[in-house]
Amino acid sequence: MKQTISVLVENQAGVLNRITSLFSRRAFNIESLAVGVTDYPSLSRITIIVDSGNSVVEQVEKQLNKLVEVIKVRTLDEHSMIGWELMLIKVSANARTRENIMTICQIMGARVLDVTPTTMTMEIADTPVRVDDFEGMLRPFHILEVARTGIIALQKGSGKM
Amino acid sequence: MKQTISVLVENQAGVLNRITSLFSRRAFNIESLAVGVTDYPSLSRITIIVDSGNSVVEQVEKQLNKLVEVIKVRTLDEHSMIGWELMLIKVSANARTRENIMTICQIMGARVLDVTPTTMTMEIADTPVRVDDFEGMLRPFHILEVARTGIIALQKGSGKM
Repeated sequence: MKQTISVLVENQAGVLNRITSLFSRRAFNIESLAVGVTDYPSLSRITIIVDSGNSVVEQVEKQLNKLVEVIKVRTLDEHSMIGWELMLIKVSANARTRENIMTICQIMGARVLDVTPTTMTMEIADTPVRVDDFEGMLRPFHILEVARTGIIALQKGSGKM
Repeated sequence: MKQTISVLVENQAGVLNRITSLFSRRAFNIESLAVGVTDYPSLSRITIIVDSGNSVVEQVEKQLNKLVEVIKVRTLDEHSMIGWELMLIKVSANARTRENIMTICQIMGARVLDVTPTTMTMEIADTPVRVDDFEGMLRPFHILEVARTGIIALQKGSGKM
């Protein structure tokens, strides 16, 4: 089962390492992890996706709460969260295929960021499923490179995490 | 000086921990880090932004190359890369302020993902500077929560990293 763990931490050298240690000691494979600044310059939010059972995630949550740099830990349930992801993707493109690729971008709400005589580079920000769909649609054109951010999430509705 | 390091790795439990160890042992503060899947299911791409001198980053690059799970390391120069970031942001909003917030979203190319009688939640994917600008424009409305992915990057033009 995929679980989304959102951790608010103080921005200090080593904090990310202490957090990833907790997971690696339990041989948890982190499927995606994103660390970004928040509206408070001294705080970062880390969003971690793991594929694991509830009881194990509860244990990790407890361990995370013991770290002094950790301000808040929250496990998000996929029905009550907005989970979003960003992908940059570079594909082969030429005069013959360019229009076709543009049409896919328009349908999916993706943007072309760079074009050369032989390639196109696009960005899409959407749910992970839609990002996968877009990647799938581009596969026949030959994908040269992909970078994805991993999922970030906020709680739906007016509540704060 | 901010540096962007892009690392292609094998998807294994502990690999992220080994990488963050390299940084924390040198007391490098990782400003942002994003791990996402690639078009090969067994490989992930990690994009790390550090604020540090060239010589130190070169050292880290050498150390990274020694890890067995690391397939490729590349330091990207900001002039030759496309660096993009995603932000989810929840702000206070009511009947009086909603239209004003919508106008800012339209100008900046942001999308509203959720609305309640007292809040609005938006997403924006753009350069980090534009993401900062959007956040700045929303500050007067009272920001409730922010999640940012950290920067991901691909090389401009037709080259692969």
